[in-house]
Amino acid sequence: MAAIIDGKAIAAGIRARLRDDITRSGITPGLGIVLVGDDPASRVYVARKRAACAEVGIHAEVIERSADIALDELLADIRTLNEREDIHGIIVQRPLPHHLDALTVTSAIAPEKDVDGLHPENVGLLLIGQPRFIPATPKGIRELLLRSGNDPAGRHVVILGRGPLVGKPLAALLMQRGPGGGATVTVCHTGTRDLATITRTADVLIAAIGKPRFVTAAMVRPGTVVIDVGINRIADPAAPTGTRLVGDVDFEAVAKVAAAITPVPGGVGPMTVAMLLENVVEAAQERR
Amino acid sequence: MAAIIDGKAIAAGIRARLRDDITRSGITPGLGIVLVGDDPASRVYVARKRAACAEVGIHAEVIERSADIALDELLADIRTLNEREDIHGIIVQRPLPHHLDALTVTSAIAPEKDVDGLHPENVGLLLIGQPRFIPATPKGIRELLLRSGNDPAGRHVVILGRGPLVGKPLAALLMQRGPGGGATVTVCHTGTRDLATITRTADVLIAAIGKPRFVTAAMVRPGTVVIDVGINRIADPAAPTGTRLVGDVDFEAVAKVAAAITPVPGGVGPMTVAMLLENVVEAAQERR
Repeated sequence: MAAIIDGKAIAAGIRARLRDDITRSGITPGLGIVLVGDDPASRVYVARKRAACAEVGIHAEVIERSADIALDELLADIRTLNEREDIHGIIVQRPLPHHLDALTVTSAIAPEKDVDGLHPENVGLLLIGQPRFIPATPKGIRELLLRSGNDPAGRHVVILGRGPLVGKPLAALLMQRGPGGGATVTVCHTGTRDLATITRTADVLIAAIGKPRFVTAAMVRPGTVVIDVGINRIADPAAPTGTRLVGDVDFEAVAKVAAAITPVPGGVGPMTVAMLLENVVEAAQERR
Repeated sequence: MAAIIDGKAIAAGIRARLRDDITRSGITPGLGIVLVGDDPASRVYVARKRAACAEVGIHAEVIERSADIALDELLADIRTLNEREDIHGIIVQRPLPHHLDALTVTSAIAPEKDVDGLHPENVGLLLIGQPRFIPATPKGIRELLLRSGNDPAGRHVVILGRGPLVGKPLAALLMQRGPGGGATVTVCHTGTRDLATITRTADVLIAAIGKPRFVTAAMVRPGTVVIDVGINRIADPAAPTGTRLVGDVDFEAVAKVAAAITPVPGGVGPMTVAMLLENVVEAAQERR
């Protein structure tokens, strides 16, 4: 039976350290969160980030805009945040309504305040190996691997998914030279042939595809470390709400063959929030 | 016996097309080449680029500076090129002397003139999947694969090397959605364990590590397409100069098992130059 990598507990420890760091520094880091429209999941995520900010002593300010906001107005909001001295980090909650080009919006954020690490310049610095801000989910996954005794160096890491928030930046991060890097990295996706053959060569298997319980036990070689990035809501007649959250991995079955595994919820999710907070604190320290 | 992928012939065809494009457009594209110090290999490469520019009708201007140039002076040279209307592309030949930080120098180039695609913003746009300029060597490799009937889509591409000029941008390029992408990509490097086991899973094996004849026949599964990016000068008593160029692949032995292979010289090298020219032409068209 696999060891459970307890992201919730690890994230709590990181938040406690950040709270101490902030108290000691005497500076209140500020995070501007732009929320466009009323996607229910986005509201939940923003509320969670806000609560986590409050817990550690970051001033979080949510700027809510309606789904039909014009691009220019949104860019003006970002410019205002760029100029504010008390705001050290800026994030724009995704997904954005279709009429707002995500790249244009992200590119408007001052790179030194782009704590999501999604501005093209910051994405480039990550691939070059001299990151300014590492995107929160990849950073959280690296932290989970290191803290659970699974240093990626020299291991074969197979990533399922080539998305802009996880798959691609994670591949860049884990293949780098230096501490926390050094993995041999394979990126698989919808176009991959013989997927199970490849996943069975993994020392570390990371699923970030958004397909509920896609990774089965047959795809995992005994002894593999499995990181589940997926957060999918599925119908569950037995649950009080009629639904429940599952990952991209069939947890019950895979836990029987894996050496270690992250649960959903309580694995990568809390780490993503903790790493965002860490990036905001780093941004505030950098400014000073 | 492997088919030989003739980069020299393919590159000649591309140069002919570019020459026609330039004649038809009535605009002379301009390339500024900054050459610092007197590294003999750099001089050879710059001379080759200059000759190729002349052939297709690009105005190339080489700015030579001594190896002890101060960073500020070099940055001033780049700023001057950034502002010139007749210069559409700028490259700084690498390697630079150690006192000049490559990232600082590259970041000074206006992103819309950065035809090497090495500015962090352009590196980021490549990883995001919306490239402005694709670095010449990865672009040339993709072209070689497509033109030799080896579309990377759905294939397992194993890249040896995680350098900033080839390995990392090539991985980003070949894993993208859309034409010329769609590969399952594995990046191997000095820290990779059981290298031969991984290389033998490749449909396409690309060597970019700078180690003469490192890839042996035992590392290649029959039927693999092999792309050799290495250019290494080794001693050869039988040669008139006492040396000769070899790639990262043991060509004679690997050609017996591979389905197709690029020679050195005459494979990737000419394509790199042709793709640089193409980027300069694109930069000039973009400006108009």
